[in-house]
Amino acid sequence: MFSPQTYQNRRTVLKDNVTNGILLFLGNIENPVNFEHNPYYFRQDSSFLYYFGIKEPRIAAIIDIDENKTIIFGDELSIDDIVWMGRQETLKEKSLKSDVHETLPYAELYKYVQKAQASGRNVHYLPPYQPSNKILLGALLGIKITELQPSVELIKAIVKQRSIKEQQEIAQIEQAINVSNEMHLLAMRIARPGIKEYEVANAIQHLAANKECQMSYPPIVTINGGILHNHYRLNTLKSGDLFLNDSGAETSMGYAGDLTRTFPVDNTFTTMQKEMYEIVLNAFNNSQQLLGPGVRFKDIHLKASQYLVEGLTDLGLMRGNPEEAVKNHAHTLFFQCGLGHMMGLDVHDMEDLGEQYIGYTEEEPKDTKTFGLKSLRLGKTLETGFVLTVEPGIYMIPELIDIWQAENKNAEFINYDKVNEYRNFGGVRVEDDFLITNEGYRLLGNGLIKTVEEIENYRAQHLA
Amino acid sequence: MFSPQTYQNRRTVLKDNVTNGILLFLGNIENPVNFEHNPYYFRQDSSFLYYFGIKEPRIAAIIDIDENKTIIFGDELSIDDIVWMGRQETLKEKSLKSDVHETLPYAELYKYVQKAQASGRNVHYLPPYQPSNKILLGALLGIKITELQPSVELIKAIVKQRSIKEQQEIAQIEQAINVSNEMHLLAMRIARPGIKEYEVANAIQHLAANKECQMSYPPIVTINGGILHNHYRLNTLKSGDLFLNDSGAETSMGYAGDLTRTFPVDNTFTTMQKEMYEIVLNAFNNSQQLLGPGVRFKDIHLKASQYLVEGLTDLGLMRGNPEEAVKNHAHTLFFQCGLGHMMGLDVHDMEDLGEQYIGYTEEEPKDTKTFGLKSLRLGKTLETGFVLTVEPGIYMIPELIDIWQAENKNAEFINYDKVNEYRNFGGVRVEDDFLITNEGYRLLGNGLIKTVEEIENYRAQHLA
Repeated sequence: MFSPQTYQNRRTVLKDNVTNGILLFLGNIENPVNFEHNPYYFRQDSSFLYYFGIKEPRIAAIIDIDENKTIIFGDELSIDDIVWMGRQETLKEKSLKSDVHETLPYAELYKYVQKAQASGRNVHYLPPYQPSNKILLGALLGIKITELQPSVELIKAIVKQRSIKEQQEIAQIEQAINVSNEMHLLAMRIARPGIKEYEVANAIQHLAANKECQMSYPPIVTINGGILHNHYRLNTLKSGDLFLNDSGAETSMGYAGDLTRTFPVDNTFTTMQKEMYEIVLNAFNNSQQLLGPGVRFKDIHLKASQYLVEGLTDLGLMRGNPEEAVKNHAHTLFFQCGLGHMMGLDVHDMEDLGEQYIGYTEEEPKDTKTFGLKSLRLGKTLETGFVLTVEPGIYMIPELIDIWQAENKNAEFINYDKVNEYRNFGGVRVEDDFLITNEGYRLLGNGLIKTVEEIENYRAQHLA
Repeated sequence: MFSPQTYQNRRTVLKDNVTNGILLFLGNIENPVNFEHNPYYFRQDSSFLYYFGIKEPRIAAIIDIDENKTIIFGDELSIDDIVWMGRQETLKEKSLKSDVHETLPYAELYKYVQKAQASGRNVHYLPPYQPSNKILLGALLGIKITELQPSVELIKAIVKQRSIKEQQEIAQIEQAINVSNEMHLLAMRIARPGIKEYEVANAIQHLAANKECQMSYPPIVTINGGILHNHYRLNTLKSGDLFLNDSGAETSMGYAGDLTRTFPVDNTFTTMQKEMYEIVLNAFNNSQQLLGPGVRFKDIHLKASQYLVEGLTDLGLMRGNPEEAVKNHAHTLFFQCGLGHMMGLDVHDMEDLGEQYIGYTEEEPKDTKTFGLKSLRLGKTLETGFVLTVEPGIYMIPELIDIWQAENKNAEFINYDKVNEYRNFGGVRVEDDFLITNEGYRLLGNGLIKTVEEIENYRAQHLA
């Protein structure tokens, strides 16, 4: 945990940004796998972590703005619990670590919320994502789950605060990224013909676990990088395949890393692989240099798309004016998703609070209709202190190619004959994590090899 | 998956054991970790696996007894899904693998249930354990979550059926146990002074994952074996400690193994460790021999308790008549829990359906009050085809010793002075998995070393 003062300060800032009422924070539970007492590993809610720091299931907290007090609700261990689970820190002791001096039994939470409601005070709460908290909120507020109305005022106040990372948070994020870097180097050392995708996934997970890290998301470790959300891991790596590894660690405090590297299962890239890889890497390098406060990330996304189009045009898969091609969304045949997203206590930071608040503004809302842009999680103007990913890619999706070609879609910009030569190419993505600084940007972590030469040299040394 | 006929046969048996109405089976979802689209690994509901075999989130099934048909409800992939996730087997194709020929879109599930309700038919469903299915059931049935009434008739029919394992299920369980055996041998090779508990946990998890297995429950890997439910893993192993490893694999079809071994962090047991270990091992060996059809497991539990008491009496921690001591529950100062539980598709098999149905009968219900017996999950008379664990142990719990001693509880049978010499001893458990056969019992799996000599020899060879 950070210092007690850290959590106290964060709560003070939050209180100043919400007009009145009570702020209700629900921690997560231990979610059952196949029966009540066989749980998945516990992950505390990120906003709860941010304001209270306590990693403990079945606790909740209230910041009462009107009465200027903060209370943590939870049950102390019974003697039965102690016999079964051993003596542990009390809730009171845990609460003091985030400078909260008042604790109450969990049952009191109901009374507190109902009393606040009865006296007509505002009860602010966040959008629940775990079903258990949907049920709990319904019970606390005495309404149907379908009638829950999370507080936009609270959401906006939290997004404003959590979007700007503190120095100590950046240190945590860099710790997560440095473990992620090691995971990726390990994958580069072990990926070779004959081994299974899941063997790579298991090895990197083991490495992270030994550094007390979880995965910040289910790793994508695949020879079918053209499939964007690919969690199938039973394929055997074979000569000629490209291997895409999109994986990151999460520190024990909950901060995420998120990196992608793509490399050949053989020691060296084929000409085709190298040409495609260089297009993506070039788009990555050029996009990175555009990062800085005051720049709209949507514009960088479109610029990145243009760099990709330029490369694909040079290679003969596209044609015509690259700027026009991007205006017509022709690039989305190859780059169907977004250039990046915010990162922090969540790999898609604060995604539970709603993309429209994290990645966009009321003045410039998200384009939720246009293929491509509807998958761009971050569009708004960058500020110093933002942490985000940059992750351009090229993905050959046979089903999508067939649909577009049947419609002769964007034929002005797309050379379908040439595209079909690449239809089973797969996918390439390069992804790193950046901090926006007053001067522009800073690559977070110690840096991970990414040029063709670096990757080929590293693998030549370690695969021998 | 097993053959389509297997699932068809199981459903036929089930139908014959429920009088009328529709049987509603809800599959599990991908549970969110810290936001909706960042899920834990998916685990299908065990009864769903048993009758339909499909490992896929967000599907449901109805066995309509009155109309003699079976339908699987789920949504086929959209083209958007295919672009993002790749082409996959259709729901129709998956359903045919369990011999189900009718599929409907998920939304039709609501209509089907509501129509059945409207015509006054029985809608049977199981007790939901995942909060998402509590919400879903409430919505399907149009009632509050607190008003859900799972079908006892359905529960009993399923427990009757799933309790008797098929040959092919036993093969799956043995596969899980054999992976578990390897996990335990690996732990015995790597546990040594200086390494962390979690390093052992991570290594065995890696081994299992490379065999396409999950953990069937969160492993207990600890130098504080006296704490029964111990998931803290940050301790460093040190000379003089006893190390307790309670862990098991789950096959990709969902079948569990569940084994415990206890051994010294040093290469050899100390005299005290050896004496205590031998008491537990002796109770284990003697209890095992009592297994067989027609025997009440509660009686074996009490016999096991008596063997433990006899050993503790020889060692001077207890005194008086062992049988009397057990009658007075004096053994529960050392053996606070139960001797074993059913095992199958769940490590505590069918625990979601209610312990009173799995482990007990209406004629002989569970003793839910007496310390010790209230933690015995299985009490009923064994039948050929049951698979269960046998896991006696001795646990020194300082907090419990202090409470009992303050009350001078069972002082007739307990030598508190001697007990206090052992108060920081920790815990010993030995656990294996057995099949009840017509002849008696069979140890499942290839067998795992468990005598002091075997363990010391193995570690001498591998720790060098």
